[in-house]
Amino acid sequence: MKAWQLTTTAGIDGLALSELPSPPLAPGQVRIRVRAISLNYRDLATVNRGGGTGAPVGRIPCSDGAGEVVEVGDGVTRFAPGDRVVGAFFQGWMSGPIPDGAMTAALGGGVDGTLAEEMVLHEDGLLPIPAHMSFEEAATLPCAALTAWQALVPVGNIKAGDTVLLLGTGGVSIFGLQLAVMHGARAIVTSSSDEKLERARQLGAAETINYRETGDWAETVLELTGGKGADHVLEVGGAGTMDLSLRAARVGGIVTLIGALAGPSGDVNPRTILFRSLRVQGIFVGSRAMFEDMNRALEFHQSRPVIDRTFPFTEAREALRYMESQGHFGKIVITV
Amino acid sequence: MKAWQLTTTAGIDGLALSELPSPPLAPGQVRIRVRAISLNYRDLATVNRGGGTGAPVGRIPCSDGAGEVVEVGDGVTRFAPGDRVVGAFFQGWMSGPIPDGAMTAALGGGVDGTLAEEMVLHEDGLLPIPAHMSFEEAATLPCAALTAWQALVPVGNIKAGDTVLLLGTGGVSIFGLQLAVMHGARAIVTSSSDEKLERARQLGAAETINYRETGDWAETVLELTGGKGADHVLEVGGAGTMDLSLRAARVGGIVTLIGALAGPSGDVNPRTILFRSLRVQGIFVGSRAMFEDMNRALEFHQSRPVIDRTFPFTEAREALRYMESQGHFGKIVITV
Amino acid sequence: MKAWQLTTTAGIDGLALSELPSPPLAPGQVRIRVRAISLNYRDLATVNRGGGTGAPVGRIPCSDGAGEVVEVGDGVTRFAPGDRVVGAFFQGWMSGPIPDGAMTAALGGGVDGTLAEEMVLHEDGLLPIPAHMSFEEAATLPCAALTAWQALVPVGNIKAGDTVLLLGTGGVSIFGLQLAVMHGARAIVTSSSDEKLERARQLGAAETINYRETGDWAETVLELTGGKGADHVLEVGGAGTMDLSLRAARVGGIVTLIGALAGPSGDVNPRTILFRSLRVQGIFVGSRAMFEDMNRALEFHQSRPVIDRTFPFTEAREALRYMESQGHFGKIVITV
Amino acid sequence: MKAWQLTTTAGIDGLALSELPSPPLAPGQVRIRVRAISLNYRDLATVNRGGGTGAPVGRIPCSDGAGEVVEVGDGVTRFAPGDRVVGAFFQGWMSGPIPDGAMTAALGGGVDGTLAEEMVLHEDGLLPIPAHMSFEEAATLPCAALTAWQALVPVGNIKAGDTVLLLGTGGVSIFGLQLAVMHGARAIVTSSSDEKLERARQLGAAETINYRETGDWAETVLELTGGKGADHVLEVGGAGTMDLSLRAARVGGIVTLIGALAGPSGDVNPRTILFRSLRVQGIFVGSRAMFEDMNRALEFHQSRPVIDRTFPFTEAREALRYMESQGHFGKIVITV
Repeated sequence: MKAWQLTTTAGIDGLALSELPSPPLAPGQVRIRVRAISLNYRDLATVNRGGGTGAPVGRIPCSDGAGEVVEVGDGVTRFAPGDRVVGAFFQGWMSGPIPDGAMTAALGGGVDGTLAEEMVLHEDGLLPIPAHMSFEEAATLPCAALTAWQALVPVGNIKAGDTVLLLGTGGVSIFGLQLAVMHGARAIVTSSSDEKLERARQLGAAETINYRETGDWAETVLELTGGKGADHVLEVGGAGTMDLSLRAARVGGIVTLIGALAGPSGDVNPRTILFRSLRVQGIFVGSRAMFEDMNRALEFHQSRPVIDRTFPFTEAREALRYMESQGHFGKIVITV
Repeated sequence: MKAWQLTTTAGIDGLALSELPSPPLAPGQVRIRVRAISLNYRDLATVNRGGGTGAPVGRIPCSDGAGEVVEVGDGVTRFAPGDRVVGAFFQGWMSGPIPDGAMTAALGGGVDGTLAEEMVLHEDGLLPIPAHMSFEEAATLPCAALTAWQALVPVGNIKAGDTVLLLGTGGVSIFGLQLAVMHGARAIVTSSSDEKLERARQLGAAETINYRETGDWAETVLELTGGKGADHVLEVGGAGTMDLSLRAARVGGIVTLIGALAGPSGDVNPRTILFRSLRVQGIFVGSRAMFEDMNRALEFHQSRPVIDRTFPFTEAREALRYMESQGHFGKIVITV
Repeated sequence: MKAWQLTTTAGIDGLALSELPSPPLAPGQVRIRVRAISLNYRDLATVNRGGGTGAPVGRIPCSDGAGEVVEVGDGVTRFAPGDRVVGAFFQGWMSGPIPDGAMTAALGGGVDGTLAEEMVLHEDGLLPIPAHMSFEEAATLPCAALTAWQALVPVGNIKAGDTVLLLGTGGVSIFGLQLAVMHGARAIVTSSSDEKLERARQLGAAETINYRETGDWAETVLELTGGKGADHVLEVGGAGTMDLSLRAARVGGIVTLIGALAGPSGDVNPRTILFRSLRVQGIFVGSRAMFEDMNRALEFHQSRPVIDRTFPFTEAREALRYMESQGHFGKIVITV
Repeated sequence: MKAWQLTTTAGIDGLALSELPSPPLAPGQVRIRVRAISLNYRDLATVNRGGGTGAPVGRIPCSDGAGEVVEVGDGVTRFAPGDRVVGAFFQGWMSGPIPDGAMTAALGGGVDGTLAEEMVLHEDGLLPIPAHMSFEEAATLPCAALTAWQALVPVGNIKAGDTVLLLGTGGVSIFGLQLAVMHGARAIVTSSSDEKLERARQLGAAETINYRETGDWAETVLELTGGKGADHVLEVGGAGTMDLSLRAARVGGIVTLIGALAGPSGDVNPRTILFRSLRVQGIFVGSRAMFEDMNRALEFHQSRPVIDRTFPFTEAREALRYMESQGHFGKIVITV
């Protein structure tokens, strides 16, 4: 099988397409023919660090992949050949709170990821694809969608009428927008592009803010909420947004910290957290149980992820460069 | 002012229309010209017990009323004459969990209620009417709507994709249906009337069950949910439904017990609660803070309560008799 | 190996001691030399139903057992020979809420249990024994202790100053007493024996009620709590206690339903649940994650389970008969 | 009556003792003869800013005071002359989540405080003093004790076996220690003084860290917890502790931010929050309902606050200077 691997050279150019033997299949495991992969900023960070530091040389990057079961190992009961499946970001987080050491079994990080023609995972780390979705659509779910779901639903207990602030139009923010609308909440989206804001409105955003025009968008959020602030802020870590995010949240509100290109940037002012009784919550994707809950909701609503653009498997480097340019709206997908 | 009062005679015929002096106005209080009242089974129960047992002779019944502020007492800051307001069911439950003794200040129970041309309440026991609603619509909110909201939102933590089972088409169930749909949940409604079920579908019910045809509707709910059962059951206490409600709930699910004509009828089998790890939760309307959250959601969605029929003030007894016949779909309102 | 098995004859006399081949060891599994077993009412119920109805002929009963690892299968990483371990009641409930179908992998129910010289379990269904405990002590934890822990801690969110009502002096109640005291709560224990109540006081009970003398002990609980009622009631299902338990709980309180000889007996009056805004919660043991949390607490406090009496392995039937007579205080243990 | 007031001069020297007329008594209000006041860093900050900026000239500082009811206004039902009472920090936060604008009715901030011979408060802003406590002891509760209670109990859901990290030996930390012990948790206390650490052990601390000796105490906490980290960290804002606090918390743990002399100092690194899935929660004292729960627990345990030193009313400035020197262990009290 062909797979993209980290080499000793950091950066997108260091990513190499190799021919590898098919991985062996142990009891409980499932062999998947990968049909689609989607990209997250984390993958870009992994590739940019290369194979000499965090991840080892030879590591296959990317956490998100969907495909078809082609073979099952001894004792597998949840899946059969022909089943359409998607992998869980954390192969070892099934339910409940995040376990210590979850990172060691994160796809494309602690273990090989999805940017390959084939992958072998334990059946417990796989989920069925929602029936109405294509492989490309399903491949967008494991990281960005589930992060937004965890932030708003099990952590945020979102309810109708809540205000949700979404920063920019990357993958997590657009899923956050769709999930906020699905729960009857009032979504506010920021962007520097009026065209993107118009698309956000078509997806159900109640309010939009062009931060290039308004400057202090925390102030605008306060105005839009009668001086109170947003109930939920999904802080995805654009440059220097942290301080504004804290100021845009209501007293007693929740600001979820979500990984991004370089991690949330800017420092956090503890005084705002204290005086506004804020909850600042680190969100790291989610469990398989949360993923199942999310898929049930997406299927009931026949929701479709927003795919910005697809690239063929051989152009994985071009796809990563496109993500790096930050011009996208929604998810970037690689098809196999 | 004119008001309906309990007399020594129990039953609807014992209800008498009297001419009473305007109540005095203490500091902190607000005088309201009542414009609309809505009925709940609790009011029927109060009237049927009459003025000799629970509530005293002379008690003005009904918990739900909306009107216009005509005068404010010393120190009132939240309202001014001309404001459109609705009263809270529990005049002493502002926020947090239900306090001991909340019942002693329940409108139309521990204290005089809304079935009068005028009422005087403390400003803390009042809320502004959502801007898009008429007095008639706002009058339907305090008891039935807030009960459904508490059951599904702060207690049930409802999320998109959840299954919500609603029994019949009375006030609480129809609000429950609207709130379930608003939160992206899958609502299942039961009724003995195909016509009512058709109307429930128009309001967004995903599934309907004519229990006259299916008999064991718990079985039908299990079939509709892949054998799992409903995440939320709003048990409003029709005849002999309790056992079916418990069986229709999923393992780990929640069955909210809600007052009705005669209280939930039938006994509760503790074995089903135990073996299905159910939460059976008594729900008694809600706090003012919950009411404010609900109104924010209703206003954002421009939701309108479903009013079955309105009666003039002089025909309060006819309105109660109509409720007794159980033919309604949604709320019954009396206009002043 | 020797094991006690259900036969076609229901009842304690139907239990037969057999010589069986050692079970095979699959990858991921662990072979344990059982050193101690403890009894629960559920085991008595299983034995009394015999092998013709629920559990099949040949089933090895009992959920609670502790022992020594003697062999580990391929891929086992959590345990090694010589480790002291205790099994989880639900072999398939690791964390989060109870999964559907947990019952199918309950020891001594859906699968073979612990009343044998040897057992083979998946490593995920085992926990290390707290260092300060003997095998006999550890064997008491899986069902009764964890049930009390789930009821009070993850479900009840017990806090210092809370009042906890414990019915009788069986295994769950005595663990509930110890856990309540450990969390700074005020425990009230009922019994018909002054001697047992005296022992409960020695374990930290703040108040005791001899229900033979007081009759309506719900009234006594209200008196002891300034008319408010208990924050937590652990309803373990003695004869006719349900109605009193509901009346003894405070407004907004929680009554946990816990399995017993015949399930909680008496019917549940839905009116009390409604008018007191009670939460009646079915509690079915707990997850491995809860078990780990509990063991950490027990070890920190060097807590020791209360063992009423031990029986040798050959006298398993005598041990069950002793439980049936209900004269015990704490747990009954069988040593191998 | 005599009272200490802010003047145009910032700093402790700017505090002036004045003779003022007794405040008038409105309906619902209670006049209290103040018997004891306790100090918090917030009072020091208020005094240091003086009467020209935040608080106005003439403002009476201090949030914590206990005394005797000497007169009640019309309509007061909760208290009578002779009752021993303590005031709530937030006069307008009764129950539920913190309301917007709570600050405007904070004693010694938005409104006059307790550093006076007499104060007049609404009856809803007062609580009875636990029966076993003196005025001096009760005066320590409103701010520091309730802050620790909120952080650990309603927010932290503390349970037996949890590890609680407490920084230093100021008022909040010592209450946090007592409350952690009361709930069966394992408390770790840091200090630069072995003598203070010895006293912390006498109060029940399971582990102590002299941070002058260990340097990187986050590392020590990880060692003491098998590499996991503390479940709860009460970050009270000593110099440069924030980063260490985040690193000392377990994956999925909670770090509560609590006001101090200069607010929590040092910046918060969002990467640690993200990668350890931390909850960083601003804690601002608490509601009256939380205060009542805490008092119930303190009374049941006959707990006594730790008072470092008392000063007479005329030496309020000396008391503040003593606090500024940070040599105390527990609370500083002023008696009237």
